[in-house]
Order: sequence, then structure tokens, then C-alpha cells
Amino acid sequence: MPAISRDDVQAMDRSDDLAGYRAKFELAEGLIYLDGNSLGPLPIATIARLRQGVEVEWGQDLITSWNKHGWMHLPQRLGEKIAPLIGAAPGQVVACDSTSVNLFKLLAAGLKMRPGRRVILSDPGNFPTDLYMVQGLAEMLGPDKCELRLVNEDEIVDAIDEDTAIVMLTHVNFRSGRKHDMKAVTKVAQEKGALMLWDLAHSAGALPVELDDCNVDLAVGCSYKYLNSGPGGPAFLYVAKRHQDQVVQPLSGWHGHASPFEFDTKYEPSGTVDRYLCGTPSVLAMLALEESLDLWATVDMAKVREKSIKLCDLFISLVEERCAGHGFELASPRNGDERGSQVSFAHDEGYAIMQSLIADKVIGDFRAPNLIRFGFTPLYTSYMDVWDAVERLRVIMEEGRHKAAEFQVRAAVT
Amino acid sequence: MPAISRDDVQAMDRSDDLAGYRAKFELAEGLIYLDGNSLGPLPIATIARLRQGVEVEWGQDLITSWNKHGWMHLPQRLGEKIAPLIGAAPGQVVACDSTSVNLFKLLAAGLKMRPGRRVILSDPGNFPTDLYMVQGLAEMLGPDKCELRLVNEDEIVDAIDEDTAIVMLTHVNFRSGRKHDMKAVTKVAQEKGALMLWDLAHSAGALPVELDDCNVDLAVGCSYKYLNSGPGGPAFLYVAKRHQDQVVQPLSGWHGHASPFEFDTKYEPSGTVDRYLCGTPSVLAMLALEESLDLWATVDMAKVREKSIKLCDLFISLVEERCAGHGFELASPRNGDERGSQVSFAHDEGYAIMQSLIADKVIGDFRAPNLIRFGFTPLYTSYMDVWDAVERLRVIMEEGRHKAAEFQVRAAVT
Repeated sequence: MPAISRDDVQAMDRSDDLAGYRAKFELAEGLIYLDGNSLGPLPIATIARLRQGVEVEWGQDLITSWNKHGWMHLPQRLGEKIAPLIGAAPGQVVACDSTSVNLFKLLAAGLKMRPGRRVILSDPGNFPTDLYMVQGLAEMLGPDKCELRLVNEDEIVDAIDEDTAIVMLTHVNFRSGRKHDMKAVTKVAQEKGALMLWDLAHSAGALPVELDDCNVDLAVGCSYKYLNSGPGGPAFLYVAKRHQDQVVQPLSGWHGHASPFEFDTKYEPSGTVDRYLCGTPSVLAMLALEESLDLWATVDMAKVREKSIKLCDLFISLVEERCAGHGFELASPRNGDERGSQVSFAHDEGYAIMQSLIADKVIGDFRAPNLIRFGFTPLYTSYMDVWDAVERLRVIMEEGRHKAAEFQVRAAVT
Repeated sequence: MPAISRDDVQAMDRSDDLAGYRAKFELAEGLIYLDGNSLGPLPIATIARLRQGVEVEWGQDLITSWNKHGWMHLPQRLGEKIAPLIGAAPGQVVACDSTSVNLFKLLAAGLKMRPGRRVILSDPGNFPTDLYMVQGLAEMLGPDKCELRLVNEDEIVDAIDEDTAIVMLTHVNFRSGRKHDMKAVTKVAQEKGALMLWDLAHSAGALPVELDDCNVDLAVGCSYKYLNSGPGGPAFLYVAKRHQDQVVQPLSGWHGHASPFEFDTKYEPSGTVDRYLCGTPSVLAMLALEESLDLWATVDMAKVREKSIKLCDLFISLVEERCAGHGFELASPRNGDERGSQVSFAHDEGYAIMQSLIADKVIGDFRAPNLIRFGFTPLYTSYMDVWDAVERLRVIMEEGRHKAAEFQVRAAVT
């Protein structure tokens, strides 16, 4: 296969149907932002939406905005806007709280739906907070009621047994980008009597997800990565219709009450997915999410997936061609079908290399012990961004720039 | 006592040390906003702070802002800015999640600190979500581990017994504005071996609170009422230093880990109050809170309390003088020392009267079954606001305007 040329890459941009979306995001000139899998950039329309929310809705209309501007139903309204992105029919998704808090609700509820089973099965490569939330729940309930069991991801299916209440996996691994076969794993879990809970943190907005079609039971997800809602934006959760009125989740705050403004002393759960709400949501964070979801509503997710795979494939090919001999080892699946929308390479000097790249305005991130990680987000990343990122990486490696002392000191937070 | 005249009230404004703060808030001309106990108005400086946060920190600096702009430590930084407002020495307060979620953390932790005791004692007039969170916890743990017991607020002290793990009260009642004697109740609870948990939703920013001085164990609070952080702004929690390393709370998300970015599979709680953090916070909501806390840092809380009592006393006197014979019955303590910063009147036509007032640009709120509720917030409410509010109320009652059909239909959300 002939080497890929700059002209080839420019040609790919010329035939890119999604190229027009770049202008809808605030991105500094010259910056190549390959960290949208950690924090999505600012949609330009969000600036005006937040000004409206702050200066008019809060500033002028004050308390009346709960009704006048529909603040009261933001969790449901945003849930319905997230639903099509994850293949959910209406009435199953709400935006609320953090992913961690939502995991606790669903895990506790799932255990109640599977009495007599006590194991929550996951893999040690899952995102740590997912595991920590199970540990908190298990410590609270005691080992006879709940136990976290960890097996490697390729052994999950075999490890599901009659003691497994819930299989909890992140659809796309945050380090490697490896994607589980959602439909197949869900099917096996359910055949063995367990519930299937997917964490969509690295899937929602990254690739088509089909929760209903895969007959998924429970899911959580994050909006501040691929969905561009802003730092720490609201998380969301999905409870399949068939499970919604079965049990009451323990974080039974007033927003999950059937009639919150009756101010009853007794909690009466809403009959819908609303019973998975808890306290008052951050309206400003919700408004930012709504604006980005309105942008997402115009996007063809099949085209996003197609371009995402091409961007990732191009990156892998270019790194392997143009940075050959510099010690990069692919740490993500080579086959696009098995991958989310990110690519990681292992390198012993990964931390310093990433610091050099960042200094050169290529923003990716580092994940211990040795991974440099790059997210590819088709709405605002061009094929030439990929070319330029690899060129800057090549120059860094050839000049040994990452050896500079300034790039060697590891910050407390990366 | 001679009737209070308009001149008397104007004189009160002329000698008001806090009058200058009014200009720091966005409040429409002619509006009398007596609902800051539900949603505080927008500090004008917050507009610029949010623009900076959105357009520069998120928009330009993107992921690097977690370090560069200190996003990572917002919960702690804001906690330290809340601390002086509630009489807490450093290292005991963090801003995070919602009040409901924070209650769950503290209640679950508190139960673990008092093994062998299972009762959480509260009163039926407490804010409903506080009771609902106990119900969710009790349902999860089972009746042998946790039970919610409700007795009327004046019977609380006598009801504390050897089975009481936690006494959970809201310092200022959301309906009546009645204020508990924090020091006395805390002392009795602790003498009987229980922990004391205060909800400061209607206290923080409303009146001086002295958590350390009262030897309080645990507290939660809300920032979107008197602290002006914006709709659904971050809640906060307080854990007295002596309790921080005793137990692990169950919502053990990664932000409470001793080293969140080590990505261990095992949860290791932080040794500080940070272990009460859970998932990623909404940065935009946090930035809005920080700006309002920076305004609060300039405020003398003793002066706030003094003016608050005078505003409330004036309102009570004027309603009773100028609206005499119209059926208003004071539903708040007459003695300012026993009251928070709000006044409620009972009236059979309360709902329609409040709707008429709102139409006339006096914003208070209605709480079922028959209370009209008015919050008095010294930073942006003048004595003449009180005079004018009562005048508008008087005209409504004299003209019977609230009898109009448009004011009779009760909205779904009030």
C-alpha cells in the first residue's frame, strides 16, 4: 500500500459531509483538539443560550421561570432529546445528577429486581468510579446482599452465573477504546437471569447506540464528553419501560415523587422513569446541555460513525508510517468495528510526549501507566487535523523535544 | 403605638448600612422580590464570571482548565468560602451535588457512626425531601437497621432516646420560618448519644450560623436561595473534623478517592471531608456560586441579621395595621429571635392573593394549604419595598382583585 500523502488527506476533507459542523464550535485557530472524549468543546450557540438563561430567565423572570421557561421539566425534556442518540423510545431517559450518582440508583434498584442474587459483575478495566460505586453499595448492604466481582473483559460472558444480579460494563473502554458487542453480551446476561447495565460515557455522541434494539435493561451516560454540554454537565440514565415501576431506588428525593409540590411527608414514587430523579438539578448546566442536544438533533449518527472510523484509521496509519521506529505501540483495536471513537498508543515516555504535544497545541491526554489517548470527534475534527497532529508528533520524536525537563515532571492532576 | 408612616419607613432606608448592596443585583425596576428564600436573584458580577467561565475557560482553555483555572478543586475552594458563613473552621465543608444527595451521604454515614441505633428522628414539618431521603435509606437497609420516626418539632427533644442514631432537623422551617435553638437541641441530642444533622437550606446567608460553636456533627445546605448561586446551584455539606475519618459514606465516587487520578480499581477514601464527594461537579454552576460567595465575603452577617429582623417586623406590623380585617393570620413567630428571614401569613384565599400580588409585581410564594410566604433578604430589599408590598396587598384586598377568575386556577407547579 502506498504511503498516504497530504493531498490524499486534503481530498478526504473535500468530500466530508460533516465539515460544515466545525464552524458551530468555538475552537482556537491552530489548535488540534483531540480530547473531546474527555471534555467536548463549546458550541457557539451555547454562549447565547446561557446568556438568555442567566440574564433573562434567572435575572429577569426569577422564580417564575420554573414554569414560564419550563425549568421544572428539564430532566425529562433533555432525556427525550438524548433518547434518539442512544436508540431509546420516549419515556425511558432522564438527565440528572452525575454518572456516579446515577450508577448508585440503578445498581441499588437492579439488586432489588433480582432478589436472591448478589453479584455485580464487571471488569477491572472499567472506569474506576463505576467500580467504586459498587464498592460503596456493597459495603452498605453487606456481603450477603452485594458483592463486586471483577473478571477480565473477555471472560465476562463466561463468568455470569446464577448469583449474578447485574452485569455492569462500560460500552467503550476509556483506556483502549475497545467496544463491547452490546447486543451479544446483553443477550447472554439476560439468558442467565441477570440484568444488563451499560455505561455509555464513551458512546453517547460517539457512535450509534441501540439500547431498545439490544433489549438493554439499564444504562447511564455522560454529556460533557462527546455531547458537548460543558465541564461536569448533567449525566443521564435509562431504565427500560418494563422495569420502571418494579422497585423504588434509594435516592428518593422530591423530584422523583409522584406529586412533588403536594409536600406530603411520605414518598410516593412517580410511576415513570421520573422516580429515578432525586434533588433539584442545576438549571444552567441543563440549559447548556439542551443547546448542544439541539445541535446533535441535526446530525446523522451513521455519518458520524463512518467518519469517526476513517479518522481513527487514518491516525493509526499515519502514526505507524510517519513515526515508525519511535516506539509507539497501538493499544486500541485495529479493527474499527471493535473500537469506539478514540485511539490510544502505549509508549514508555507517554507522559512527556503528551506534554510536548500539548505545548505544540495538539491536545490529547495521558492515562497511566503509559497510554497517550486521542479522541476523534467528527463534528469538529478534520482529516487534515489528523495529518497535522501526526506531523507535530513526528517532529517532536525526531527532535527529541519531549526529553526537555519541562515535560518530564508529572502534574498532580493529568 | 402610633401607626407607622411612609416617612418613618423612608427614614429607615436612609440609615441602612446595607443599602449599597442593592445595586449589585439584577432586579427589574418596580419589582419587589420577596422570594429570595426560594431562588436568590442574579448578582450582576456573575454575568461576567459566567462569560469568562464559558467563553475563556471552557471555550479557549478546554480540558487544561481543570488545572489552569482550578476547576479540580472547586468543591473544596467553595466549601472554604461557605465555611465562614456557617461558623465552620477550614477543612469541614465541600460544595457538591444536591441537598438530597448530600443528606443521603450524611445519613448513611451517621448510621454507621452509631452502631446499634437505628432511628433517624425528625419532624413531619421538615422539608419533604429530607424525609424522603430517610425513607429511601430505611427501605434499603431494612427496619432493623433504619427507621424514620417523626414527632412534632416541640416534642423532638423529649423523643430522643437510646435508639436514636441521628436527629435531623431543618434549622429554619420552610413554611413558618420558625427557627430551632441549634445549640440547645444539638446538646441534648449528643447527651443522649445521638448525632445532630442540621439542614441549613433556609439559614445559610439568612442569619449567622455557628456550627462549630454549637458542636454540630453534620449539616447540609443549599446555595440557590439566600446565597444567590442560581437555579439548582450546588448544595454543600459539613462534617465536623472529629467525624471525618470514622466511616466511608456509600456514594463513594472517584472525586472522594484519596488519589482519583491513580485510577485504582479499589476505592481508598480521602482522609479528609473530600471523601464526601462523589462524581464530577457542574463547573458552570460552581463558578456562579463562587462569584456570589465572593460578594458574601464582603458582608457583615450581624448587620444582615439585624436588618432581616427589622424588615420582617416591619412587614408584620404593616400587614396587621394596614390590612386589618382582611383575614390574615400570622403563621410565623412574632418574636424575631425565633424566626429565620421569612414571614408567612395564613389566609383561606392565600393562593389567589399570591397570584394577584405576583401580577402586581410583588413576588412571594404560596405553600399549601393556605400560606402566603415572603422572604426578606437584606442585601437587596429596602424598607420601602416592604411598605410598597403591603400597600399593593392592601389595594388588592380592598378592591377584591384576587377574586378575579384568572387568579383562582391553581397551576400544577406553584
